[in-house]
Order: sequence, then structure tokens, then C-alpha cells
Amino acid sequence: MDRKTITALKKIIGAEYLHTAKEELLCYSYDGTGQEFIPEAVALPASTAEISAIMKLASATPFPVVPRGAGTGMTGGALPIAGGLVLGLSRMNRILEMDVANQVAVVEPGVITGDLRSKAAEHNLYYPPDPASFKFCTIGGNVGECAGGPSAVKYGVTRDYVLGLEVVLPDGRIINTGVRTAKGVVGYDLTRLFVGSEGTLGVVTKIILRLTAKPEAKETLLVLLDSIDRAVALVSEILAHHLPCTLEYMDRTAIELVADQFPEPIPATTAALLLIELDGDQKSVPLASKRLRDFLQNAEQVLAVHTAHNSKDAEQLWAARRRVSPAAFNLRPHKVSEDVVVPRNRIPELVTTAEQLATASKIPIFTFGHAGDGNIHVNIMLDRDNPTEATAAEHAKQTLFAKVMELGGTLSGEHGVGITKANYLPMELSAETLAVMQSIKTLFDPRNILNPGKIFPATKQNEENN
Amino acid sequence: MDRKTITALKKIIGAEYLHTAKEELLCYSYDGTGQEFIPEAVALPASTAEISAIMKLASATPFPVVPRGAGTGMTGGALPIAGGLVLGLSRMNRILEMDVANQVAVVEPGVITGDLRSKAAEHNLYYPPDPASFKFCTIGGNVGECAGGPSAVKYGVTRDYVLGLEVVLPDGRIINTGVRTAKGVVGYDLTRLFVGSEGTLGVVTKIILRLTAKPEAKETLLVLLDSIDRAVALVSEILAHHLPCTLEYMDRTAIELVADQFPEPIPATTAALLLIELDGDQKSVPLASKRLRDFLQNAEQVLAVHTAHNSKDAEQLWAARRRVSPAAFNLRPHKVSEDVVVPRNRIPELVTTAEQLATASKIPIFTFGHAGDGNIHVNIMLDRDNPTEATAAEHAKQTLFAKVMELGGTLSGEHGVGITKANYLPMELSAETLAVMQSIKTLFDPRNILNPGKIFPATKQNEENN
Repeated sequence: MDRKTITALKKIIGAEYLHTAKEELLCYSYDGTGQEFIPEAVALPASTAEISAIMKLASATPFPVVPRGAGTGMTGGALPIAGGLVLGLSRMNRILEMDVANQVAVVEPGVITGDLRSKAAEHNLYYPPDPASFKFCTIGGNVGECAGGPSAVKYGVTRDYVLGLEVVLPDGRIINTGVRTAKGVVGYDLTRLFVGSEGTLGVVTKIILRLTAKPEAKETLLVLLDSIDRAVALVSEILAHHLPCTLEYMDRTAIELVADQFPEPIPATTAALLLIELDGDQKSVPLASKRLRDFLQNAEQVLAVHTAHNSKDAEQLWAARRRVSPAAFNLRPHKVSEDVVVPRNRIPELVTTAEQLATASKIPIFTFGHAGDGNIHVNIMLDRDNPTEATAAEHAKQTLFAKVMELGGTLSGEHGVGITKANYLPMELSAETLAVMQSIKTLFDPRNILNPGKIFPATKQNEENN
Repeated sequence: MDRKTITALKKIIGAEYLHTAKEELLCYSYDGTGQEFIPEAVALPASTAEISAIMKLASATPFPVVPRGAGTGMTGGALPIAGGLVLGLSRMNRILEMDVANQVAVVEPGVITGDLRSKAAEHNLYYPPDPASFKFCTIGGNVGECAGGPSAVKYGVTRDYVLGLEVVLPDGRIINTGVRTAKGVVGYDLTRLFVGSEGTLGVVTKIILRLTAKPEAKETLLVLLDSIDRAVALVSEILAHHLPCTLEYMDRTAIELVADQFPEPIPATTAALLLIELDGDQKSVPLASKRLRDFLQNAEQVLAVHTAHNSKDAEQLWAARRRVSPAAFNLRPHKVSEDVVVPRNRIPELVTTAEQLATASKIPIFTFGHAGDGNIHVNIMLDRDNPTEATAAEHAKQTLFAKVMELGGTLSGEHGVGITKANYLPMELSAETLAVMQSIKTLFDPRNILNPGKIFPATKQNEENN
């Protein structure tokens, strides 16, 4: 980006919101992958009109533009791998409307997901998607990646709550998609084409979200089992007759990592645990909880069922669950975390594969995640500076992905593709399907300026375009 | 279509499945709009490979291809308005898989929606979407139009249950989209781009559907009110604290049409009624029902609350609701039925507009529908052979649409655009948004052979292409 471009950008958004100093650029160079790419400049626009003007300039020049929320993404969606401009959306952080009667919110992309959840709660409303990073990540980033979370088993993912969007296209045109009503089928579903497109088709500048009534009550159960197969079979049995809002599991290694964090001691024979939550109205939750407890206490191979008696107890269970990821670094300094999905009755086969890979590759591999969805976080721990472990980790990842495909699964349930999974896409998508997606990218962004190098596997042509 | 094309088609699917006789063509010439367009031929393929071969031939020739399910659509999606070939999918009617453990079904497009619901129920599973025509319409048609139904207020619409698709593109390429797991975010969301695209982007040949656990119990309540404003305010109050699976309303005219069908007499002061259902497990439904009844009995301006004491009572209430549409023809021989949507707290303004239009235009206009979603069926009754009424109906429709836009709504909640709403699209979509949609159509179907003339407003260029 030359001096003239920088001057033009400053004119669009004001000099104080256009950063080129090295120490500023560094702040926008990394994300949840731990990888780092320094952009040439960072713009912090305050309006759709400013973003439209930036995109017009970027198309005409051309230079790459990478939209960025809070940088909590796990696959590199916000990394400026081809240089250019990072478009930081932190100043566009207003909740524009909270329409209580219609259970709709209209927000800017920089709103923190947790802030929206809190604001909704003040009006007895609920925004269900709850990615682990919800206290930091933004709705815009959630829309870009189609983020999920533990509550997806009952409530679905980000896609299921986006009613409509305002989007700036790569050439600067501004379009509105979707509706602000519960239903709407006029024309093609552009809204969901943008959701999960990882900032490669347009910059989302306004989001219309569906909310629901806030559940009045919640109960949390912890179930300990002596076998992972039994745990997973139990998941299907539970979902056939109960509707939990969370159905998480942890394998033996994950349990061992945080065993001392639980309110009650974990028996040594525990091979898997399930963390289950039920929500709903004050009167029905205790009833549903009792019904589920009765079922669990009569189920085979269940070692114990603990009930959190109050929100403090429940929080302690969740704190233990959330400690798994950080505690993993006690095993090795680096982590490759994959959020693969398999049909949920195939989870035992996936976990067996992970265990076998750990033994064969001599690096720790453990699993936990959203058992109700079959969305399992496989954590491959390594020391990247140890070439043997680096090779073993890469091999383990490839073997894991091949197994996921064999089991009828998908490479990503909620993290997206970004750069970390791009080269594995041909394992899941046929050449024809990939060609259709690539042609949509070219249709929207013929000069390949918007978040280039993401999603699609590197090809000679892609590399030249970048 | 010349003799050579007909011969080639016969070769692809077998002569007995290619119809050109006038009496056969007539059977595929109409749909729920009552309009009639005679195709040049009808093909009844039995496989994806046959459809692929047909599309290759159609692209090369070219000739128009119009996919058709059961022809129950309300906006002309299945009408061969440009002649060519109707692709009847009735032979592709197999439920290929019922994966009980993972709550997934894989079906061909010609499966009757009601058959899938019945088959799922045998396994204690539930496919929620319930368009009024579910006993006749097909899943393929539901996917094409993104059909809804009364249960959408709790369970969502067709879009929310489609996990993945097999699609034949206009040039004959076969692609697979989406996943067969609860989650999946790999690449662009082609699945939902095809859902609701009204057969204009590809022919859906296989559908992977998410199912849920079948609710064990259901209770049905009928609420009579003396004011439509109060009825609608009550809808918002109910949804703030209760989660019904149905929340239907009828206005005074709709009630009068079927007043003698209800199990108990309807007081003359009744201006609106709500039909509410709650579902869930055996123990919680009676509790939730009592909680809602207590609320309703203490609510202002409620004339009466009736509870269906058994499924026969409930069926009688629903039978009355279903009788509204046929009974409307007692008013006039023809009906223009619009499924507009407004934010639900604006329903009273919409209903007032409808009442004023009825008075001003001297034709009967009445409303009923899915109050929980704001999706209101506005029925304009007329005698088409009476030019005054035809003009009045057209004027009423235009005024209605303008009001819907003013209220922040959408022109279609579940029927789609087809041909009956195509020319009104610019009222809802900007020229830029329409241009983006049109460019996607051109990308997928450059020769405009697949269901031409649907969705997009007629332009000089469109007409030439047709």
C-alpha cells in the first residue's frame, strides 16, 4: 500500500483511526491460532458508509482487506496472510435496537456476544449461541464463522438466529438481505450465504437477530461412566426422550487434567463424563431433571450422577470444564485443536482412533466437546520445536481427518476453515462442489481482495491472485 | 422441442416415462394458483443419473426444464410458463434411510411430507414442518419453497431441518452440499442457497433431514377475544413466558365462515380467536398447559378459554380451522391468498388495513394465520369474471403489499415468489440486492433453462431469454 492509498484511507475514516505504526499493526496480526501476519495498515471505521468507501478504494487500487472482530477465531479467518488492510470493527459496537415485543435485536458487528446476551437478559430475552469465547468474541465474527457452542444441541448455532444482514460488497455496494420477521422466503437466501463465509464475500455491517424468551430455570447434572462407548450410547438414549440444552462429554485424559477442580472426588475407574443441563420454566425444569435423573440412575454402567444444587455448584462444574483447554498446556507447550464432527453414534470410533494415535505417535491426544452434536474437540498436544513431535502431530491430524470422513463426518463444526483447514477441504468436498463455491467467490469478489487465501485450498491460480 | 429431443429424452428415461399426449400434459399444467400452462413434454425420471443426462441435453439444446413435486404450490413455482419439459419427481419417492440413533433421514424429493412424518413417528422421531398440504405435498417441493406451517413458531421451517443435499446443476453436474451431522461449517452454505430457490438453481435429488424426538403429548386451547388488538397483544405476552408449538389466529370473518364447526358455540361478540397448542413430555405438558390457562383466564378481554379434553376435541378445533379456506368460496368463486409477514406487534395495523380495504373495495377480505410468526394469510375474495372486482382485488393486493413494507414485513413467509409475486419484488428488494440474486442465477444457469421466469420481475432481458 503506497502513501497515496494511506492518505486516501485517512481521508475516509479520519487520520486517528488509520494505523500504520509497527506496534499498532502487531495488535492486529494474530488470532486464536497463535499465528502472526503483520498487515500493512489497520483501519477502524465507524460506519457502513466509511466501509463502502474503503472497499471502493480497495477494489480500484487493488489491495487486500481483512475484516476482524476480536481475533478469537481458531482457524485464521482474521489473519492478514496476504498483507493489505485489516478492517477492525471494534468501533461499530452498538446494539441499535432491542425490539422486545418482537424478540428481535439489531446490532453492529463489533458487539461482544456476551454483551448482547446480558442486554437481552435485562429484557427477559435470550440469545442462545454461546461459543467458549463469548465474553470476548464479537457477533460479527460469530456470523463470519457461523459459531456454535454447548447450547447448540437444543438451540442451534449462529445461523439459526440471523434473520437479516446489511453487507458491504467487495466493490463497495451496500445490500440488505433477509427480513426482520420470524419468516421470510422472498428471493435467494443471501443471508445464510454470508453466514459462515468467513469474511470472503462481503463485510457484514449490521445484523438482525432473532431472540427467544429467557429460560427461567436451569439444572446441571454430572454423570460419571466407566466406558466411553457407554457414555456415547447414553447420549443417544438421552436425546430420544429428553431435550437438554447442553450435553458435553470429556474423555479420561481430559478428566485427569482437571480432576482436582470438581466439587466431589472423581473415582479412578471413570473413563468418561457427561455434563448435562436442562432449562425451561420454573415448574417444568425440576420435573424434567427428576425424570432424567431417574433414567440415569437406572441406566447401566453409570458410576455416579451428581446434581448441582445451586448456581455456585453448577458454576464449579463449568469452571472445571473450561479449565481443560488451559490445563492441556501442562502436557505440552503447543496445541492443535480440531473441532471435527461425526454422527454421534460414531463418537466411540473417533475416540478410539484418537487414543490409538496418541499411543502410536507418543504425543498426548485427548478429546472433549459437544457429544449431543457429535462435535468433538480433538486436542493434539506437542512441542512445535521438536521436529519429531511436529511431524507426529501433522500425521495424527491427517489420520484423524481421514477417519472423520470415513465415519460420515465433517472437518469443522463451528471453527470454520480459514487457513488451518483449507488444504484439507478436498477430503470433504468434491472438485465440482469446490468449483461452485470458488465461482461464487469470484462472482462476489472478482479481484480477490476480500480476505484472500481463506477457505479454498492453495492452488497455483490462488497463489498468483494473492 | 423437436422430435430429435423427444427421442433423446425417451432414450434417457425409457419411453413409458416420457409423456407428450395432450391429456397427460394437462395433468402437469396447473398448481395451487389455479393457473394453467401446458408443457411440451413431461419426464418422470427415476434416478439422479437420469436427471443429470436430461439437464445436459437441456443445456445443449437448449429447452426449459421445470421441476415439479405434487403441484400444491401457491405461487406458480411448478408451472411451465415458458413451455419445455416438466420434470415430475413422483417416482423418486423413497425414504432411503431412517438413522434413528442420529435422528437423521435421507429421502428422495418425491417423498410425501406426511409419509415422512408418519415413518419418523414409527421410530419415535418427529419431522416438524407441517405445511397445510402436508398430506399431499412433497419434501422436494417444501425444500424448493422453504415451506413453513403452524409449528414454525416453535420448530422453525423447512430450512431449519435440511442438513445437506444432492443437487443436479443446470449443466448436468452433480454436487453434494452440507453434512449429515448436527453441525458443519466447511465452505459456503450452498445447502441453504438451494433451499427456497424455487427450482431455479438446481434440481434437488436427495435430501438429508434433521429429525427430533417425537413430543409425547400435546394439549390444544381455544381462546376467544373481543378485539383483534387485544388478541395480538396477548400473542406477545404468551411468547414472553410460554413456548407453544402452534399459535394461530382467525379474524371475525374467518370465524363466521366456520362458526358452526366448533364444538361449543362462539359468542357473537367474538372478534378474534387464538388456537394454541403446547407439546412436550407427558409430565410437563399438563403443567405447562395449566400455567398458560391460568395466565389466559386472568388476562384482560378474554371472553373464553376452551381446552380440548382429548385428541378428538382437538381434531374438531383443527378441522374448523382447516375449513376456513374451502368455506371462503361461499363468499366468492375466486381467491387471492397472500402469505405476508409483519413484525407480530404490527398485526393489528395489517388487519385494520385489510378491513378498510374490504369496505372500500366492496369485496370480502379476511385474515387468519400464524400469529406467533406474524405470518398472516390475507384472503381477497372475488369473481374474476367481474372486471370491477378483478380491478378492486388487484388494487387491494397492491395496497396491502405497500402496508406490509411500511410495517417492516416481507411479501412471503412460506409460499415463495414464483410468478404471482415476481413483479412486486422491487417493493421489498433494492435494485442492488436483486442484481446480486440475478447474478447468482446467471452463474448457476447461464442459458436460463431451469424454471425460467420465476422469482425475478419480468424485464425486457428476462422476457427475451424466455
